[in-house]
Amino acid sequence: MPRVNVKERLIEHAEDVFRRKGFNAASVQDITEAAGVPKGSFYNHFASKQDLAAEIVARYARATDFSALHGEGPALDRLHRHLTGQIDRIRASGVEFGCLLGTFAGDGTTAGQRVRESVRDALDDWAGAMTRTIAEGQAAGEITADRPPAGLAVFLLDLLEGATLRAKATGDQSSVADEVSIALDALRA
Amino acid sequence: MPRVNVKERLIEHAEDVFRRKGFNAASVQDITEAAGVPKGSFYNHFASKQDLAAEIVARYARATDFSALHGEGPALDRLHRHLTGQIDRIRASGVEFGCLLGTFAGDGTTAGQRVRESVRDALDDWAGAMTRTIAEGQAAGEITADRPPAGLAVFLLDLLEGATLRAKATGDQSSVADEVSIALDALRA
Repeated sequence: MPRVNVKERLIEHAEDVFRRKGFNAASVQDITEAAGVPKGSFYNHFASKQDLAAEIVARYARATDFSALHGEGPALDRLHRHLTGQIDRIRASGVEFGCLLGTFAGDGTTAGQRVRESVRDALDDWAGAMTRTIAEGQAAGEITADRPPAGLAVFLLDLLEGATLRAKATGDQSSVADEVSIALDALRA
Repeated sequence: MPRVNVKERLIEHAEDVFRRKGFNAASVQDITEAAGVPKGSFYNHFASKQDLAAEIVARYARATDFSALHGEGPALDRLHRHLTGQIDRIRASGVEFGCLLGTFAGDGTTAGQRVRESVRDALDDWAGAMTRTIAEGQAAGEITADRPPAGLAVFLLDLLEGATLRAKATGDQSSVADEVSIALDALRA
């Protein structure tokens, strides 16, 4: 098996293993087994589990679909479409395994500096994308101008992550859409 | 050392170890070392790490201060005092270690059935206590009657947990109070 192929297989399968087990419980062996590569090959491609995890977080962030935020129509509708898309994404990968970013945010204390920075960058980029849509909604008089757009974006993102954490604990995602709807109503001018 | 003392010491120190490391990264040896008891004594008192963790979650829930919810004054003020108290509790035990309930909710997939049930019970009891205060606020015309009180309580609790998860990732709790204030404004009639 060519080396590049092994690295790609590791990256491809690690996301699922990390989401299912979290950073700490996922072993290098779990990841190499899921990828179907020899355990010894791991360290030819990554210096550590931390190293791979930081790359997986960045990859998850790059794969986040922000297109709804930049679409047509009222800003609140665009935010609603975007957040609904994220709810669907989490459902597709298993509600009981939560959001990969949320899982790594929770594991951050023990996962180390590189993983923590990768999570912070991903959260910042995500909040930044929503901030721009919220600022447009404020300029259009559709969203309350009583609060800075960045604060409202962080509020929406944290509500989604908190509701997704509950869904992970209960195995039931049904309250998340209602909670997002309450949060979006709070932004209305 | 009498056996009852050893068990109490284990319970007393396990909360801190679990909050700092999460369920998976905290080993029985970490807990016995923190408690200053011989490693072998652990299994005289607990069948497993899961067993102790479920007890720690229940203990954390019992130690939650709900008194502000049952105090005097407008329901929104009581909710604000209660949530501010929880923010202070998390700050006192280390922002970067988050909320014990949130940490275990995130670890639930691998921590096993008993821990998951313990987390679910704790979240249900907490949401239940806030639901009663919200229903009082609705009866007084102070809180919107457009949504069931239980849904609003879950929204508040999940926002707090999501904001606390962000604070855990960033080491910075400063946005949490603002986010709680946005969430409480959303409840206003």
